[in-house]
Amino acid sequence: MTEYKQVTEEDLAVLAGFVDRERLLFGDEINEEYSHDELASERVYPSLVARVTSTAEVSKLMAYANEHHIAVTPRGAGTGLVGAAVAVERGLMIDTTLMNHVLELDEENLTLTVEPGMLLMELRSYVEERGFYYPPDPGEKSATIGGNISTNAGGMTAVKYGVTRDYVRGLEVVLADGTVLQLGGKVVKNSSGYDLKDMIVGSEGTLAFVTKAILKLLPLPKKNVSLLVPFPTLEQAIGTVPLIIKSKAVPTAIEFMEREVILDAEEFLGRKFPDNQADAYLLLKFDGNTMEEIASYYDDTAQICLDQGAIDILIADTEERSAPVWKTRGAFLEAIKASTSMMDEVDVVVPRSRVNDFVEFVHQLRQDIGIRIKSFGHAGDGNLHVYILRDDLSDEKWRELMRLAMKRMYAKARELQGQVSGEHGIGLVKRPYLKESLPEASLVLMRGIKQVFDPNNILNPHKVCQM
Amino acid sequence: MTEYKQVTEEDLAVLAGFVDRERLLFGDEINEEYSHDELASERVYPSLVARVTSTAEVSKLMAYANEHHIAVTPRGAGTGLVGAAVAVERGLMIDTTLMNHVLELDEENLTLTVEPGMLLMELRSYVEERGFYYPPDPGEKSATIGGNISTNAGGMTAVKYGVTRDYVRGLEVVLADGTVLQLGGKVVKNSSGYDLKDMIVGSEGTLAFVTKAILKLLPLPKKNVSLLVPFPTLEQAIGTVPLIIKSKAVPTAIEFMEREVILDAEEFLGRKFPDNQADAYLLLKFDGNTMEEIASYYDDTAQICLDQGAIDILIADTEERSAPVWKTRGAFLEAIKASTSMMDEVDVVVPRSRVNDFVEFVHQLRQDIGIRIKSFGHAGDGNLHVYILRDDLSDEKWRELMRLAMKRMYAKARELQGQVSGEHGIGLVKRPYLKESLPEASLVLMRGIKQVFDPNNILNPHKVCQM
Repeated sequence: MTEYKQVTEEDLAVLAGFVDRERLLFGDEINEEYSHDELASERVYPSLVARVTSTAEVSKLMAYANEHHIAVTPRGAGTGLVGAAVAVERGLMIDTTLMNHVLELDEENLTLTVEPGMLLMELRSYVEERGFYYPPDPGEKSATIGGNISTNAGGMTAVKYGVTRDYVRGLEVVLADGTVLQLGGKVVKNSSGYDLKDMIVGSEGTLAFVTKAILKLLPLPKKNVSLLVPFPTLEQAIGTVPLIIKSKAVPTAIEFMEREVILDAEEFLGRKFPDNQADAYLLLKFDGNTMEEIASYYDDTAQICLDQGAIDILIADTEERSAPVWKTRGAFLEAIKASTSMMDEVDVVVPRSRVNDFVEFVHQLRQDIGIRIKSFGHAGDGNLHVYILRDDLSDEKWRELMRLAMKRMYAKARELQGQVSGEHGIGLVKRPYLKESLPEASLVLMRGIKQVFDPNNILNPHKVCQM
Repeated sequence: MTEYKQVTEEDLAVLAGFVDRERLLFGDEINEEYSHDELASERVYPSLVARVTSTAEVSKLMAYANEHHIAVTPRGAGTGLVGAAVAVERGLMIDTTLMNHVLELDEENLTLTVEPGMLLMELRSYVEERGFYYPPDPGEKSATIGGNISTNAGGMTAVKYGVTRDYVRGLEVVLADGTVLQLGGKVVKNSSGYDLKDMIVGSEGTLAFVTKAILKLLPLPKKNVSLLVPFPTLEQAIGTVPLIIKSKAVPTAIEFMEREVILDAEEFLGRKFPDNQADAYLLLKFDGNTMEEIASYYDDTAQICLDQGAIDILIADTEERSAPVWKTRGAFLEAIKASTSMMDEVDVVVPRSRVNDFVEFVHQLRQDIGIRIKSFGHAGDGNLHVYILRDDLSDEKWRELMRLAMKRMYAKARELQGQVSGEHGIGLVKRPYLKESLPEASLVLMRGIKQVFDPNNILNPHKVCQM
């Protein structure tokens, strides 16, 4: 294993020439938050945190780190769930959250140029106030856009609008040696050499440091309608989804939810969910520019749901009615987290026709191994979020059962032609499962690419494909 | 420069054990077509052509070629315009056109799995007959889907629907050493390691050989309306496009066309264009599921055009009315080609707000250097197709003026923050312009990636980033 240099007082003196000393946190100055991400089971303190404000600062820091073989860990808002922002080799952590500005809204080219530390929720309101739409919609709105780009975040609207990758037109990145590079641009098409931009998207800070993004915007749809559909069983709810897709309706989102998770959210939010008729629900959204256009879709969808045994169709066509439902959905992760002592998660994605197979497997699994497991997810795109809960298990028992559950779930995902991660990434903790799921030839290519981008291996070491 | 082995009688005897002898073309058996692509200015005969029918055949051929250091050139329908399918080092050409089957239409996951040799026009009719839509729509419908993937083809619908890359969910590829690898799959989201799939898309056969593609489909929009809008000047026509985009209309396509190119097409097709009021036109298409939905968009757009000085708005809301207009548009390339002795093309893409700057530059350029240049293009996505015509110029004069025109146009595109190729790729002949347009650091990364995928450099050598 490579030996990394730690940041010393001497280094600090040099680095303070690149970044104002008050934006450098050294030793005891480093807040506990910087030692982990949202997952929190893996904790390491970096030896220095730099709260950068410009590309030039990042470039100078990286050039220095590369020369002195100091590990560099990029960090946004720290909302990741796989330990990608944990500074495993300590070294230098570069925090992007002060680089949080809109640089340009170009209405003629429908692009927004932003710094990487801008929070997703701020980005959304900025564009929506101006009549534009940035579709990717992960539950975690306090993530940074840089983090979203690094994990290729998806969210609830992927079924209609695709994922973050589909909205990144251009990137400015700093390479390991400090070189600043523009990839792509405002152009709509590009067949000019290999697609370096998409290699960076989803690479979790292991190939280059993103300092600017040119994002594609859409006009904001003028209307939307949500349908909350209670079903007698979860199997019926999820089984309806492929029929909706096959009917050629184009929902913006199709989520599935179970009563037990709704109860957690009710407790967490301190307010009631608008319906209590059933143990299982589909929650759908349709958008468009006129209510007539939307109605033409959701009428058919409602009929399909009823034909499949839905108990009711609750239509939320005002913000007032739909907000509490989506607010509940948005609180699931936090609510589950609050309901137990510790948890770990699985973010597999399977073809959407196989979601039921996976959910059924999970239900059986929790009986078989005797551990609490809760799940919800994006039925429309096949991406499931499954949480394994520690409750009052001993350390040893928790590790044993958690690992067993993980192992079985990832094996099942593979069997269903699925992938290890739909949107959370691989980071530190999912590497063994990536290794099991990909053929050796893919891993060899990935490691070769890592070597090309980062020959000294300073960028977020031990992540993704570095086992 | 590396020395490549040529295919000998001895090799042929071995290779005939992998692929039936009647599907191997050797020496004189090789048709002239295999010596060039549609550009036709670069001509080299391969020493062997293999008309493969399966992934297993490709794998065996590649393993053999890799072991014996024989160059491999993949070829689809040969409709490329940049010499990517020219076997510069002779060696083995692998022709995919017999691998032209639909393997699976999965209506529950909205995917179509196809072999690479399927023609785009066949793929389109296959899915459209079944109520599905594969949006990428390059003018050249007799290209193969494998070729479209290799150049990341765009076409006319990119303004609304994006490019080929956006519709490739999964690939089966054969690596240089014969290893068969699945990348991506039917899943809608994927954050499981580096994005190898998108590295292959647009890599023009230099990184791996595509043997299967899983494509994303959409439901077929039920209605469409085309608007043909004559303008007094081309500048007014093109200048209207950013205003249409800014108005938040979402056209499926916005093309610009000039009278002189329409005249070529009239002559080529032997029939009249439906309008002769003007020297410049915008041609727009809108699609949706109801006429009301579409009308809500195109009414506003028509008004914007009139405000900008449009002479008329011709609405084609039936297949009968719109077909002749689009047929004319579809014939532009062939018509221009038929109007001269030889030509070469530029396929730059610029931000869509800069199209007028580029077109104006081209008009000035043809006066300045005294050569005929014709253009048309995708005003909606900033991708221009500019053709430099040889007419009766001497060989020497043609080379001189053509190179001068090219050099100036690519420099202008760079100045406007554009890229060398929007959709045709780099291949053999655009390499000098790619080199001028990209920073050295990008080229170094691309060459490093090439080395990772193809360490013996057998796959389509001298293409894209190999200067």
